[in-house]
Amino acid sequence: MGNMVKPFLQGRRLLETFLVLCLLVYVMDLPSAAKAAGKVNKHVWDVRYNYVSPDCYKKLAITINGLVPGPTIHAVEGETVVVQVTNSLVTENVAIHWHGIRQIGTPWSDGTESVTQCAIQPGDTFVYQFVVDKAGTYMYHAHYGMQLGDGIYGMIRVKAAHKEPFSYSSEHEILLSDWYHKNAYEHAIDLSSEPFVWVGEPNSVLIQGRAFACNEPGTEAGQCKEPNRKCSPFSLNVRPGRTIRLRIGSLTALSTLSFEIEDHEMTVVEADGNYVEPFKVKHLYLYSGETYSVLIKTSPKKDRSRNYWMVAKVVSRESSTPSGLAILNYNFNPPLALPPTDPPAGPHWNDTSDRIDQSVAVKAHHAYLNPPPKKSDRTIILLNTQNKIEGKVRWSLNNVSLNLPHTPYLIALKENLSYVLDHKIPPDSYDVENYDIHSVPKNTEAHPSTGGLYRLKFNSIVDVILQNANTMTPNVSETHPWHLHGHDFWVLGYGRGKFNMATDTASYNLTNPIMKNSVPLHPYGWTALRFRADNPGVWAFHCHIEFHFFLGMAVVFEEGIDQVGELPDSIMGCGETKPFVKP
Amino acid sequence: MGNMVKPFLQGRRLLETFLVLCLLVYVMDLPSAAKAAGKVNKHVWDVRYNYVSPDCYKKLAITINGLVPGPTIHAVEGETVVVQVTNSLVTENVAIHWHGIRQIGTPWSDGTESVTQCAIQPGDTFVYQFVVDKAGTYMYHAHYGMQLGDGIYGMIRVKAAHKEPFSYSSEHEILLSDWYHKNAYEHAIDLSSEPFVWVGEPNSVLIQGRAFACNEPGTEAGQCKEPNRKCSPFSLNVRPGRTIRLRIGSLTALSTLSFEIEDHEMTVVEADGNYVEPFKVKHLYLYSGETYSVLIKTSPKKDRSRNYWMVAKVVSRESSTPSGLAILNYNFNPPLALPPTDPPAGPHWNDTSDRIDQSVAVKAHHAYLNPPPKKSDRTIILLNTQNKIEGKVRWSLNNVSLNLPHTPYLIALKENLSYVLDHKIPPDSYDVENYDIHSVPKNTEAHPSTGGLYRLKFNSIVDVILQNANTMTPNVSETHPWHLHGHDFWVLGYGRGKFNMATDTASYNLTNPIMKNSVPLHPYGWTALRFRADNPGVWAFHCHIEFHFFLGMAVVFEEGIDQVGELPDSIMGCGETKPFVKP
Repeated sequence: MGNMVKPFLQGRRLLETFLVLCLLVYVMDLPSAAKAAGKVNKHVWDVRYNYVSPDCYKKLAITINGLVPGPTIHAVEGETVVVQVTNSLVTENVAIHWHGIRQIGTPWSDGTESVTQCAIQPGDTFVYQFVVDKAGTYMYHAHYGMQLGDGIYGMIRVKAAHKEPFSYSSEHEILLSDWYHKNAYEHAIDLSSEPFVWVGEPNSVLIQGRAFACNEPGTEAGQCKEPNRKCSPFSLNVRPGRTIRLRIGSLTALSTLSFEIEDHEMTVVEADGNYVEPFKVKHLYLYSGETYSVLIKTSPKKDRSRNYWMVAKVVSRESSTPSGLAILNYNFNPPLALPPTDPPAGPHWNDTSDRIDQSVAVKAHHAYLNPPPKKSDRTIILLNTQNKIEGKVRWSLNNVSLNLPHTPYLIALKENLSYVLDHKIPPDSYDVENYDIHSVPKNTEAHPSTGGLYRLKFNSIVDVILQNANTMTPNVSETHPWHLHGHDFWVLGYGRGKFNMATDTASYNLTNPIMKNSVPLHPYGWTALRFRADNPGVWAFHCHIEFHFFLGMAVVFEEGIDQVGELPDSIMGCGETKPFVKP
Repeated sequence: MGNMVKPFLQGRRLLETFLVLCLLVYVMDLPSAAKAAGKVNKHVWDVRYNYVSPDCYKKLAITINGLVPGPTIHAVEGETVVVQVTNSLVTENVAIHWHGIRQIGTPWSDGTESVTQCAIQPGDTFVYQFVVDKAGTYMYHAHYGMQLGDGIYGMIRVKAAHKEPFSYSSEHEILLSDWYHKNAYEHAIDLSSEPFVWVGEPNSVLIQGRAFACNEPGTEAGQCKEPNRKCSPFSLNVRPGRTIRLRIGSLTALSTLSFEIEDHEMTVVEADGNYVEPFKVKHLYLYSGETYSVLIKTSPKKDRSRNYWMVAKVVSRESSTPSGLAILNYNFNPPLALPPTDPPAGPHWNDTSDRIDQSVAVKAHHAYLNPPPKKSDRTIILLNTQNKIEGKVRWSLNNVSLNLPHTPYLIALKENLSYVLDHKIPPDSYDVENYDIHSVPKNTEAHPSTGGLYRLKFNSIVDVILQNANTMTPNVSETHPWHLHGHDFWVLGYGRGKFNMATDTASYNLTNPIMKNSVPLHPYGWTALRFRADNPGVWAFHCHIEFHFFLGMAVVFEEGIDQVGELPDSIMGCGETKPFVKP
């Protein structure tokens, strides 16, 4: 068998030279194809370890060019973004996902290990190339194991080429994250342990990669005279009398956050790259994977001789994690001069109603309506349950807990290697009649499988109802931030209790639903989404809590696989796509 | 170009089924080939993270089947060892080297990432298969990045099918290692930093994977009433009045050790799988990569009502690391009953003469002489220097600091992918005339390269002179334990100062030199080796200090590449051996 390898390898040199030339011509010289797609926006990234101490605790992070968060990508809608990622981790692979970018025509650039590509090996360089076709606020992060939690994340700012329905004098990114002193390797063995070891609450909440520590240890923020400059908090400089756009995103590993700026109301104007009918909030709830643009006014009415707190507080879990603090720095106060006040306490962690209200309040801007089809072709109801499977704690959808396959779905399906996947078709619903969502789950038939793959009719309209339930702990139902790759979906509605197909569909907002790529599923509630399966590829749909995804809380959608173009060879090299594999 | 991929991938299923069947028939059923090679000795290993706390400090280790050290392989000479390694690390690759096994006819099973194989990816299973053709004490360990230091190592005990020149009533392994609380990822960024951050001395020395901690913190061993049972030391149970064989090996990341058993003289009888003309020592020096068998007598003259200390002390560096302590437990004393004495202090760390004397004392057993050829065909003198290259601290041989290539040497050379390597031929010597080995190196021409590849005439006799020198610190020359893959070599001699080709060759021991695979290069000294380049393959020759190897202290020997059999496909999948690679 091995004699296949020689002509194959010997022919490689010429082929490679040709490919290098092609890419050079394409990237450097902007020929017709690139011109059509818009300007090329190129980035050279090196993924490497670096010590960081955002909260004054020194931790080995996985960084991009040494930074946490990584560099912001600044692009203009229509541009082709090219990111050349070199893996300089010594023994570890990596993959990077472009969160919110639909990857139309480039499903292989989605960066989702096991779904759209093999991980990038140490020493390898992988080129992500995709069009940012829609203005908005997006993000990127590792999508391999639980590397996100160790610091590989950042923002993508796609400026509008058209006029937007609001104006502002300056704009800034604020990326929120939570931060553990333990690393992803430790989390992996904790979560795989028998008995189960929960990773616990994060040590810190970071605002733009920084936490707040007082220079006098143990002093609360309001009493603190000076922040610890070794890990000084993020400080955002603003001028008075302006309207400022803040592009806020959350890439927490676990936490739902409430973000607030002391004495500054926020007007929500964009969500996940879609314009929002403006509404004002005192605090903005962010679920991992979401982005919002808000406008704030640095009005001359305020006392400009002082700075103001920015606060990111953990909600929806009774968390021991101190709130993330940063400083809104009015010109010309010292950037780290502490506000004379206590930081705002924020909303109560368990005020689910307030959070549902805000979820419902996010509607499409009246001038940018893209109303959904009135009906769907298929409805998939996904019951979210925590289960014990083979002695280990897992998360399941309709009793299927996703095991990521060794060969990525996109390659397996496109290249007819479907024998690598479990062929059992996952169910479109659960036992709605008899399942008690308020009880500890008894579903003993839950099982791990690579078969959580829903094959969708191309261009069909699909409804997904996310149904929450009780966890394995009595009287506990968690919040799950769900994220869909490759699409924006219409958010048709949120409800409490068990979704009722006969009555709850009547409450759908079919008039001005917002389109998003990430959406919360509230405790004991349901969330209804609709999308058009019109993007040829294979797309992950999963809970954006790193630990829940690791424990199987995901499904995969395939649509129009036959319309997917020739797969680039660079996404291969693992599982069945190694040149040859001995058992 | 991508259309090559489809028939290739589609044909894979049949091919793979065939391969599975072949392997099953081969492994399970012992057909003619396996019978000729001897019995099959099969092991199933899972490489995974596990918390361990050998010195009462909890650290995430990389383990085999959860263990540090990993399971001992018990084999009989002539057997075929099959180790099926599954990589269950979540995002990290691995490769395992069989230290001292010559891999005759199976160079692809040597387990040296970048030299003989691509690393095993997460989820992959790789089958190592090789014949243990010679009785003796061998070891295995990770050979990828600096994973060895995180715990992947163990011993291979190959029993003789013939009568040995000594007898004993029982035998035991004692694997020595040093242990850092920092992990390999942290070491990697420290060593790659500018300015350079040295990893420092290890936190502990482990004897058979255990350290000694007193139950009363801060109490010295001699004053300690009870060891801390949470991390209790290794205790070796022996009966009085017996002769016992101890198979002792060292796989330290950094340290040279002196091993001693209180009141028990040791008779050295085997070194690196070769019989030694017996000689007695009070303490045995071990350089990383070496193994020795010693015989001890648990004589009835001794006080058998007590236990005795075993001590492993760091020498050749002025180390802050406490000596490793374990217990020789006389039947029927309690296993952890502490000896009533202070542990032996061991030799002075800086007694180079004593260490050279012991190196020289290791000679081949008179009944097992395999005298070396009288002359060599080629002499390669390798000057060992520490250099600053591109602002970073590195180690070089004749000014070449090895950068491991992206495509393993074995594959690159066998499959004529030599364009992936630097073609500059590394020098066979250095400027012997003018180089001052007692001064801080001034060699500004040192450079990193994948070209540290010496191509040897098949079956030729090669001499290697390792020449030590001053480091970048005035008046410091370090000890380097050098290890050759794929061969045993004759140890022709050790000397002080600069090797003189005209006069020092006369001092060679051509009568009864020991054969070994690992050998020390003493401070400011030289070590002369001779071997026959008769094992078709590509073989690493390197300093066995993990950190020095990481910093380039290695060369590679190629011999008889045209006689290497068909390469197994399972070693491929990285660099140029991915099915296709886009730049």
